Amino acid sequence: MLGVTILGNNSALPAFDRHPTSQLVTLEDQLFLVDCGEGTQVQLARYKIRWGRINHIFISHLHGDHYFGLPGFVHTMGLLNRENDLHLYAPAPLKEILDLQFLAAGSTLPFTLHFHPLEGEGELVRTEKCRISCFPTMHRVPCWGFLFEQVRPLRKVNIDKARIHNVPAVFFDRLKKGEDFINGSGTRIPNAVVTDPVPKPKSYAFCADTMYDETLAEKLTGVDMIYHETTYLKDLNERAAARFHSTTEQAALIAKAANTKRLLIGHFSSKYDKLDQFEQEARSFFPDTDLALEGVTYYI
Amino acid sequence: MLGVTILGNNSALPAFDRHPTSQLVTLEDQLFLVDCGEGTQVQLARYKIRWGRINHIFISHLHGDHYFGLPGFVHTMGLLNRENDLHLYAPAPLKEILDLQFLAAGSTLPFTLHFHPLEGEGELVRTEKCRISCFPTMHRVPCWGFLFEQVRPLRKVNIDKARIHNVPAVFFDRLKKGEDFINGSGTRIPNAVVTDPVPKPKSYAFCADTMYDETLAEKLTGVDMIYHETTYLKDLNERAAARFHSTTEQAALIAKAANTKRLLIGHFSSKYDKLDQFEQEARSFFPDTDLALEGVTYYI
Repeated sequence: MLGVTILGNNSALPAFDRHPTSQLVTLEDQLFLVDCGEGTQVQLARYKIRWGRINHIFISHLHGDHYFGLPGFVHTMGLLNRENDLHLYAPAPLKEILDLQFLAAGSTLPFTLHFHPLEGEGELVRTEKCRISCFPTMHRVPCWGFLFEQVRPLRKVNIDKARIHNVPAVFFDRLKKGEDFINGSGTRIPNAVVTDPVPKPKSYAFCADTMYDETLAEKLTGVDMIYHETTYLKDLNERAAARFHSTTEQAALIAKAANTKRLLIGHFSSKYDKLDQFEQEARSFFPDTDLALEGVTYYI
Repeated sequence: MLGVTILGNNSALPAFDRHPTSQLVTLEDQLFLVDCGEGTQVQLARYKIRWGRINHIFISHLHGDHYFGLPGFVHTMGLLNRENDLHLYAPAPLKEILDLQFLAAGSTLPFTLHFHPLEGEGELVRTEKCRISCFPTMHRVPCWGFLFEQVRPLRKVNIDKARIHNVPAVFFDRLKKGEDFINGSGTRIPNAVVTDPVPKPKSYAFCADTMYDETLAEKLTGVDMIYHETTYLKDLNERAAARFHSTTEQAALIAKAANTKRLLIGHFSSKYDKLDQFEQEARSFFPDTDLALEGVTYYI
């Protein structure tokens, strides 16, 4: 299972009941929070999300609309006596800001907060079922996107057929990796006889704030769903470039070049009170586009 | 004119559609913001307050529920091209936190932000029509309350009577201060003959977070309206003391001892979903008590 719930889809400031950036990624049985604009804890409550299960938070960059809700959210976790460790992946300077805030409040957390400063490109989290990595995007300050991927064994053991061919359970892990089994009498049982193919692992990329950057498409080729910011409609591409942001057309071009199945667009400028044109414009270039609407979960 | 609009009346975290502390004080023609919990900018918008007129912000202490909305609010002022100077009165460590946040965002404000670190007790703002001062309260970290007072001349010149007695306009300022006028022929015109009394100046005290502290009542004797926190009902006075907070009964005792006309109570713990008992209990000790309800303006 891979899905993303939008908690905030506006840029810069809250307006028109749209909130600054935050997304909740559900990957298998885990919840991951991506960015945490002011009011994220209220949005989590509004959509009845059991956020106690969030153990990893990712902050793309240190513009306020992407993290000003984090200190309050972490503070609330402490007040409600969270015990589990919390992992925070963020640009390095956030550590000192949080430390000063805790110092000023004379408070400590009842749980361990692990701060992982973002650097370059690479894997952040790896479990049996998922992999999360970061990649830099082109913005006015250091900024990272995040790629969420299911991890699947190559094959699934067909228990009945494995029994028929006397494959011992201890060999199942090797079957999953695609190996053939050679039994006691030297007969080779081809892997495909005792295993079934598994569904292709799914993937989602959150591209944070970024100006138009074709290398993103190369990096994300084949990703099932891409979230790309569209701060502006296409007529404002000069303003978008000047502010290191993107337009509908640019987001759609990235989606097309990356050969993704579905494009989510968001981070709408507060100069727009309605969003219809964002949808229309982006779909004219890439039909499988959806607006990232708050409270909605987009499954892959 | 002196009134206070409640923007947030909850303690520690947002719950039950109650928000962390923030109040807007309207004193004559000026707006003053007191504390700025997370979401204050959204609350200001919700109650359609023209916050561009806020030139002074007061932060009582550095627990997150009293200031985590400040960086976002100041940031929004910048994005909307505020030009007027902004004065911020707050505990000293906030300066470094804000500086780090601006540095990390690579951004500067289009207006001047004057940071005034709070120290001891004394006057913060003095204009022709108002005076604002701070006083320490007893909390777990350094914490200040704020006293808002109208400034009035002693007397108001009665223009008609002053003309009859040939008092020149240049002497009016001295009449306002209560002086008699002696005319060219040496006759003394008693002040009361050519002036009228002015209404008593009004005052409001915001007592921030505080444990029960009788010296507060001495300090605030005669203040027209006092806001005093009531994090807990009276049965939890041990918990209140342990956490440097107060109960309904304690707030009422302060109001009574200070001989105030009206008590406002707030900073309700999130353990209470309903507030009726706060009102009942406080009124049983001090009848002129009101709950500080969000969106409501209490005039003096």
